[in-house]
Amino acid sequence: MDKGKIAEWLAQGSVAIPKLLLQHYKQLGLSEVEFMALLHMHSFMQEGIWFPTPAELAERMTLTPAQCMETLRKLLQKGFISIEEQVDEQAVRSETYSLKPLWEKLVHYLLAQSLTEEKKERQEEEQ
Amino acid sequence: MDKGKIAEWLAQGSVAIPKLLLQHYKQLGLSEVEFMALLHMHSFMQEGIWFPTPAELAERMTLTPAQCMETLRKLLQKGFISIEEQVDEQAVRSETYSLKPLWEKLVHYLLAQSLTEEKKERQEEEQ
Amino acid sequence: MDKGKIAEWLAQGSVAIPKLLLQHYKQLGLSEVEFMALLHMHSFMQEGIWFPTPAELAERMTLTPAQCMETLRKLLQKGFISIEEQVDEQAVRSETYSLKPLWEKLVHYLLAQSLTEEKKERQEEEQ
Amino acid sequence: MDKGKIAEWLAQGSVAIPKLLLQHYKQLGLSEVEFMALLHMHSFMQEGIWFPTPAELAERMTLTPAQCMETLRKLLQKGFISIEEQVDEQAVRSETYSLKPLWEKLVHYLLAQSLTEEKKERQEEEQ
Repeated sequence: MDKGKIAEWLAQGSVAIPKLLLQHYKQLGLSEVEFMALLHMHSFMQEGIWFPTPAELAERMTLTPAQCMETLRKLLQKGFISIEEQVDEQAVRSETYSLKPLWEKLVHYLLAQSLTEEKKERQEEEQ
Repeated sequence: MDKGKIAEWLAQGSVAIPKLLLQHYKQLGLSEVEFMALLHMHSFMQEGIWFPTPAELAERMTLTPAQCMETLRKLLQKGFISIEEQVDEQAVRSETYSLKPLWEKLVHYLLAQSLTEEKKERQEEEQ
Repeated sequence: MDKGKIAEWLAQGSVAIPKLLLQHYKQLGLSEVEFMALLHMHSFMQEGIWFPTPAELAERMTLTPAQCMETLRKLLQKGFISIEEQVDEQAVRSETYSLKPLWEKLVHYLLAQSLTEEKKERQEEEQ
Repeated sequence: MDKGKIAEWLAQGSVAIPKLLLQHYKQLGLSEVEFMALLHMHSFMQEGIWFPTPAELAERMTLTPAQCMETLRKLLQKGFISIEEQVDEQAVRSETYSLKPLWEKLVHYLLAQSLTEEKKERQEEEQ
């Protein structure tokens, strides 16, 4: 068992998932499989792969490429991810996924929830 | 929109998932739903809840408590988690889940994989 | 080299640090040593040690217990941490550190910064 | 206070630091400032900046560019980081930092420590 191998494993690092998302994805309308697809996309993007294909996702998931394609389609349609066009220095166009809509949905949910709580507290005070 | 609320959100923090696990859970025999159940258990344990109930898991997952119970049973049976008995200072017994078996399975897989690679390299050299 | 040991190492997990804090601690008035002290406190608190002593911090840092005490004093005085009193079920009082002031300072800074940017943009539009 | 801004903050994400490193950097011979320099390098590399300059580091640290240069020099000399040469598809050469030596040092330390513990246990059993 060589040391270099273990060092390589430690070097792989981790993906950090905000607890807020872990605790509220259900209320946002995400299933566990969809959450995992987003997690894989996030991880791919950290590795510099900005537009992972259904086949690439399927290599890491228990889904077929067709099922991954369907999951991506749903995530786009439900507004959790978007596709952005990039133009690089050589004027070459390329597409990247963006998870920005996911974070916006989360903030929207948290703000609505905190407004509801405030309202409730005020009503209780008035009684 | 008050500042304290946003500060509270930032303070929630994140759960870190090793990329090695994210890339190989499929080969270990875990489904996406089982992975998510483990992730929730890990998060509960970080909050000091060492033996989350099916009902507690079901609050955060899109599963019913019965389905969470079934998932926990499967994770135990397939050897991804174990139940450990703790005895505290007042001699009160309590049970906690342990994810140690999961990490042992991952290391076992990684070692086997690196042995296979070494063998292949040696065979290629010999030819 | 036994597998159990490597599994134990992987099981240790990671502490997640928001990039926002990493990029702006300097502007908040934190030095590198103070940042590290906060990081150790955060890690201790995740382990269930809510009021790490200067001696406990000194075991992990290159500082003496007296220097750790001085660092804690400064962090309290500059308003990055606070001490909160807890009363448990048996009415036993205990003290815990809270990092909430740190997150409030960060949000305060980010909001001020985004207001300044907006103002600048508006002024540029008017010209 | 617009929602998009808060979403952007959440989207920034976190850097995950292995607790093993946090608990043992002192024994590896790293100071707090050196640890922070490594953390910034890691974060830059995640952003795709593989060879951060002293000036770039100095923007985020309380050090001057000259002090950052000196810190990088020390980290190289003490064997915590290395410089690797990359050749891209257009045969353009570029240099990148690598943190692999850091992880190797950590594994080396952990293995030595676990051997010492085993020896001690065996000696205690023999008595």
